[in-house]
This record gives sequence, structure tokens and C-alpha cells, in this order.
Amino acid sequence: MLPDSPIEDHRRFGRRDFLKRSAAAAVAFSTGFPPQPPTIDASRVNAILARFRRFGGTGDGGTTRLAYSDEDLAGRDYATGVMRRAGLEVSTDLAGNLIGRRPGTDPAALPIIIGSHMDSVPGGGSYDGQVGSAAAFEVALTLADHDIALRHPLEVIIFQNEEGGKTGSRALVGRVYAFELDIVTASGHPIRDGIARLGGDPARLAEARREPGSMAGFLELHIEQGALLEAGGTQIGVVEGIVGIRRWNVTVRGAQNHAGTTPMPLRRDALVAAADFVRAANEVATTMPGRQVATVGRIEAIPGAPNVVPGEVRATLEIRDLEMTGIDRVFTGIAARARTIEADREVAITLAQFYESLAAPTDPRFRNIVEAAAAGLGYSHTRMPSGAGHDAQSMAELGPVGMIFVPSRAGISHSPDEYTAPEDVARGANVLLRSLVALDGR
Amino acid sequence: MLPDSPIEDHRRFGRRDFLKRSAAAAVAFSTGFPPQPPTIDASRVNAILARFRRFGGTGDGGTTRLAYSDEDLAGRDYATGVMRRAGLEVSTDLAGNLIGRRPGTDPAALPIIIGSHMDSVPGGGSYDGQVGSAAAFEVALTLADHDIALRHPLEVIIFQNEEGGKTGSRALVGRVYAFELDIVTASGHPIRDGIARLGGDPARLAEARREPGSMAGFLELHIEQGALLEAGGTQIGVVEGIVGIRRWNVTVRGAQNHAGTTPMPLRRDALVAAADFVRAANEVATTMPGRQVATVGRIEAIPGAPNVVPGEVRATLEIRDLEMTGIDRVFTGIAARARTIEADREVAITLAQFYESLAAPTDPRFRNIVEAAAAGLGYSHTRMPSGAGHDAQSMAELGPVGMIFVPSRAGISHSPDEYTAPEDVARGANVLLRSLVALDGR
Repeated sequence: MLPDSPIEDHRRFGRRDFLKRSAAAAVAFSTGFPPQPPTIDASRVNAILARFRRFGGTGDGGTTRLAYSDEDLAGRDYATGVMRRAGLEVSTDLAGNLIGRRPGTDPAALPIIIGSHMDSVPGGGSYDGQVGSAAAFEVALTLADHDIALRHPLEVIIFQNEEGGKTGSRALVGRVYAFELDIVTASGHPIRDGIARLGGDPARLAEARREPGSMAGFLELHIEQGALLEAGGTQIGVVEGIVGIRRWNVTVRGAQNHAGTTPMPLRRDALVAAADFVRAANEVATTMPGRQVATVGRIEAIPGAPNVVPGEVRATLEIRDLEMTGIDRVFTGIAARARTIEADREVAITLAQFYESLAAPTDPRFRNIVEAAAAGLGYSHTRMPSGAGHDAQSMAELGPVGMIFVPSRAGISHSPDEYTAPEDVARGANVLLRSLVALDGR
Repeated sequence: MLPDSPIEDHRRFGRRDFLKRSAAAAVAFSTGFPPQPPTIDASRVNAILARFRRFGGTGDGGTTRLAYSDEDLAGRDYATGVMRRAGLEVSTDLAGNLIGRRPGTDPAALPIIIGSHMDSVPGGGSYDGQVGSAAAFEVALTLADHDIALRHPLEVIIFQNEEGGKTGSRALVGRVYAFELDIVTASGHPIRDGIARLGGDPARLAEARREPGSMAGFLELHIEQGALLEAGGTQIGVVEGIVGIRRWNVTVRGAQNHAGTTPMPLRRDALVAAADFVRAANEVATTMPGRQVATVGRIEAIPGAPNVVPGEVRATLEIRDLEMTGIDRVFTGIAARARTIEADREVAITLAQFYESLAAPTDPRFRNIVEAAAAGLGYSHTRMPSGAGHDAQSMAELGPVGMIFVPSRAGISHSPDEYTAPEDVARGANVLLRSLVALDGR
């Protein structure tokens, strides 16, 4: 095991930080507010984050740390060491999730869980999942530094294979299906073998399931993966929930014709009608009040020759919103426009749903706690949906969840260009710590 | 060789037809107009057409008679027999075109050429090319029946491999390139071997070239392959020319983004911009005066996933018009709209031309002759462009050309459902005969 320089850094600078924090606590006392926890160590959390790059860093700022790969195993070994230094008792559950535990002072209190994931997509960035994991470690280290006891037990969980389908967090809610175990992941390992590689037991995966109501709450810090915070110059996103998703196959049927011999007025061009549809979907989602999104991401004209008027177009439509009823509202608007296009262009349009992922709102009390934590630290903040899926979506089945977003440069994610500034990482970790302490004290 | 029943039919009914025709000629005389040729034998020309189906007929109304295939060779043997019965001297030129010749009375006169092709696409119809070939034979038979001498020599040409790229007619104007000889055609035979199979000499292909100015004119009858004549209830199309074609690769570059995390106002969706482009191209071509057409026949969104905002779209644009300047005009209009879309949607659109086929206008005097022939026969007629390519396009390099269209049911072509009614075939053959005689008498 390589020497752990971030921890050493901390030991060196620990005292100075402690003095600063004590001063801050004194101010809080003097103004009559309840005492606030110390702030995290900004240089340490960023050093931990930088250290993650030793395991799959690609030299261009990015990281390829595929779930179940050797890099994943090495990264988890490193994480185990960090968690142990924070005084956590580290184990791997039957699903292969890496878990660090810290007891609480109240034997009857349910655990509070914090955490994220450390695996990446192929050719991915060095922040997605990793910022939330590093921040969770930093929170545990800060609690240990200051001997802060929590009433609730604390669990830090590094969920396995988030990028390949949230396998770890879904196992905790009993939603990994038998057929999935045979799926060969990007690492080359089927999920079954991958779970075994991590120290889990694929044959006993069902036993990894936890009961709804078995936790006091779950808090996840994550990079935004969008451009909203950066565009608004905002430091903290108070996540209102993870959006629901519905996807449809769109088929537009017109009349296939010779592109040379069919005059414009006699055409029933399926692609021209599909173009109307693409614009209509965009317009409906853009002009309705709300933050819903609608996307046509795939399109094919049939037969697809430069000299043939397309007789059919196949495309996809995806709508996301924080409320499933919001998705319904957008879909109704788009479907109405499709009926108009059918009449105008003499085509037939069918919309067949093929995918659904239910929305997972965060707990309103958790939103307030995160918001108050950000405000208390003097950070600018805004409420926003999460357009992407996260482990918190699974965890919402076990109890109340909250999520904290930090800015992503230019909204870029799943790319070596993914970037979150060190000061934003530190702010996120501070909000996570303060929210945890607030939640514990409720 | 199978017995040739259409010819036998003709012999049986020949006398009755002759009497009818003589009566018609007498009427023409009595009204002071110059004498008109007799009309063709409607049942005979349709029987010849039906006979073609013995060579590659697919039993579903369609025909697969691929150039250079055994069916093609058998069909040409049959055609040779019909032309000989019409008194033509039959030979195969160095390019493998099948040619029937009839001398003229004026030794100094250049030949008038009529004809079309007999090859089909795979799974093709029984009318494309075949109606024009049958009609050319019928014209020669009618001239022979009535011992009508023409001042000009007459050539009936069955051009080889029209469907595979107009090889036969392009060889006559020296436009078959060396590399083409190695192209393996749908029959499985490379063009080189195919030419040899037909009795041509691929090594001496260049000698098949004829000189510009070496013919008095070329007349081709063809099915419309569009729906314009049928839609207008019109019997004869007076072709104004074969449209020119230009094709472009269209690339729209926006910003690829996560479809969940990118709010609608922050998107630079390449597919939404491409949808604008598809509609703009359609609108410009539809609203400009003229009969130009513009088609986007192929489209692909990249990366093409339902949950990714497309960062790039690749498509094709094709514009056809009777005048190349008309194509330029439409393109300029569409390109201007592309500039507007670029600004509106914050994307970059490039248009890169990759194909050009020059327009071949028919000779204005030939249009008048064809029109007068149709009018003299009491057939409804209209002037129209040919949206498809034809052998006449090559022949226009040798001298003036004219084309006659007959209706196609529902505009369907290159399909077993291709159909032209027997009375339309007969009308076309009559217009071809009368136009030929008028041209000869000029």
C-alpha cells in the first residue's frame, strides 16, 4: 500500500484547521444559533479525489475505472484504507457494496447512510461518483478528527456498478433480476463474476436486500452533470428529486416514392412529417411551464437512399420530469401535435411506449436541511431536479433521501473533460457534513 | 424458338386493320391535312409486351430480367426475331446494344433512332423500358405492314444495361470508363463479361462511340414512373427533358448532451436543427415557381441513443430540375435557410456536393412534333419533365432527342405492381409512329 499523503497532509495541518473551526463555533454560539460542526478540510478532500486517479486515470484528465475491473478493485482497497483511518469498520455486503460503519450514541436509532459510487464509464471523467465518494470519506474523517459523536449510526456506502445499471443500490432494494447476472459488463466480467470479484456472493444476492424503513435517511453528493449551476453562477444544487423517464418508439408512415418523378405537391414524405414531429416535441417541452425535457435521440428514414422519398421514419421520443403526471402532460401535448401533423401531411404516426423509470422525489424535509446547510455556510443555492439517475433513486425505496449537487464545467460528463473545481468539491463536502449533522440532531 | 403468336395474331387480323387505316387516311386527305400514317396494331403491341414476360417474368406481374442474365439473352433473341419480321437488319454493336436497321430513300439523310431498353431491376416491373421497346418494334412492324418508306434510315436500338447505369447508351457517347468494366452487376456478371455475353467486344468498347451530329434525332417512349399523368387523367406526356441532379451530404453540428441533465433552453440539439432543415428544403422546393424537387432521403442522428441529445446529424439533400440553373436557384434558397437555422439554433451546417448528373432538355421542335402527334390522334397531353434518367439523356449528346411518356398506375415503378394499361401502351406507340413520320418529313 502506497503512503497516503492526503491523510498526512491533514495531520500536518490539522491543528491550524481546528483553531479556525473553534473560532467559527464560538461565533455561532455568540449569535445564539446552535453550534455548527467544523468545516471539512478542503485540501484533503481534493487530495483524496486526486488520489482516485491512480486507479484508472487515463492521463488526459479522465478516468476509466470500470466496475469489477482491476482498477475498481484497487480503488476499493484504497477507499478501505481511507475509511479505516476515519475509524469506520469496513466490510463488503453480499451484493459487493463497500460499506464503512460507525456506531451511534442512541442504540434505538436507525442508520443514516451517505455515499456514492467510484466506478466510471469507459473513457469517463474523474468526478462522476468520485466527488460524492471522496466527500463521504472526508465527512467521516472530519467527524473523527473532532471526535464528533452522532446519535445515529453512520454508514458510508460505495455502491458497486452504478454506471452499468446501479447494480449495488438496486440489490439493496431487491431489484436485481436473475437474467442480469449474465450480462457481460464493459470490464468483460459478467455481473455474477463481478460481484464475486468484489467479495460479494452472487448466489446469495437476494439476502443483500434491506427492508423499507430500515434507515433514517440517505444523503448523496454528486456532480450536476448539467450546466444549470454553472450557467446561474450557483454553488449548490438542492436536488428536488430524480426525474421519471418514459420512452416511446415513434413510427411515421407516409408514401415511399421516386425522388425524381414525384412532384412536391403529390408527396407524402414521412421524413418531412417526422421533422414536424421533432420540432413539435421540442417546442411543447420548451414552452410548457416546468422543467420537463423531451428528446428525439434516434431517427432513421426508410429506405434511406438519397433518391427515394422516405416512406417511413422510425425514431425515439423520451420525456423526463420530476413528476410522472408532468410526463403525461407533455406527452399529451406532443401527441395532440402528432394528430395535427397526420392531417397536414397525410401520414400515420404511432407512439409506442417501451421504457419507464419512475420519478424519485427527495424528501421535502431533507431539501430544507440541505438548503439551510448551504445558506448557513454562505453558499448560493438553488432547487433543481436531477435529470440523470443516481443510487439515491434506489435508496428512496428504503426511506427519505436527499441529494446535493455541485457544478460541472459546461455540463460535460462521461468524458475526460468532466470537471468540478476544488472549491466546489469542498463546498459540496461541507454541505454534506452540515446536512448530516442537522439530520442527526432532528 | 417458340412460335411467335403476336405476329400470327397480326397476320390473322392484318387485313381488317388495313381497311380501318385506309379509311382514316382518306379522312385526313379529305380535310386537306397531309396524309397521316396508319395507326399501330394495339393488340399486337400488347401481345409483344406480354411475350416479354416469358423471359424473366416472376408470376406476380413483375419481371426480373437483369442485364447480361440468361433471361436478358433469351429476350434479345426474341427481339431479334421480331425485328427481322419487321424487315430490319439486326446486329449487335461493339457495346452489346441490339440494333435493327432499315434503309432510307435519301442516301444523304442521317438515321433517325428509336428504342429503349429491355433489362429490369431485380424484382422489377414488366413495363419500365419494355413498353418503349415493344412500341419501337410495333412501329417498325407497322411501317413494314404498309410498305411505308422513310426518307431517313431508321435504327431501332435496344440499349444494354440501362438499369445498371445506362452502359449501352453511354458507350455510344464514349462515357463508359475503364473502371466500370469491373463492376459486378446484379446478374453476377462484371460489365466486361456481360458485354461479351451480349456479342459486344469490351476490348473495343471505345470504337462503339458515335460522333455528335451523326443522327437526325432520337425518340424514346417510356412509362412515366410518376403519378402526374394518372393524377391529371392525361394520356400522353410530352417530355421537356430529363432533369439534372445534384446531391449533397448535409452535416449539422450542435452539442451532444445528456438528455436528462440538459434543460431545453441550454440545448444545441443537432436533430432539432436538422428538422428545421428538412422542412426548409421541402418548403423552398414546394413554394418556388417551377417543377423542381428537393428530397432529404437519408438521415442519421449521432450518437443515436434515445437518452442523448444528438450532437451531430448526417443527411443527404438531392435537388432535381430541368435546368441546372434551376437547381442552383433552389440550392441558394435552401442554403440561405440553413444560415438562418445556424443562427437560430446555434449549430453549424455544411453542405458538400458529392454527385451531379447534367440536365438533358429535349429538342423544342421534337416537343412540338410529339405534341402535334398526340393532338392529331385526339389524345389528351401535357408537357412535363422526366424526373428519372433515361437512355435519351446520353443520346442527347449525339443530336436532338424527344421523349413520350405514357401513364404509370399510382406512379409505382421498379416493383411488380408497376402497370400501364394496354390502351395507354397503344396510344404511346401511335404517338411514336406519328412523331417518327413527321420527323422524317420535316
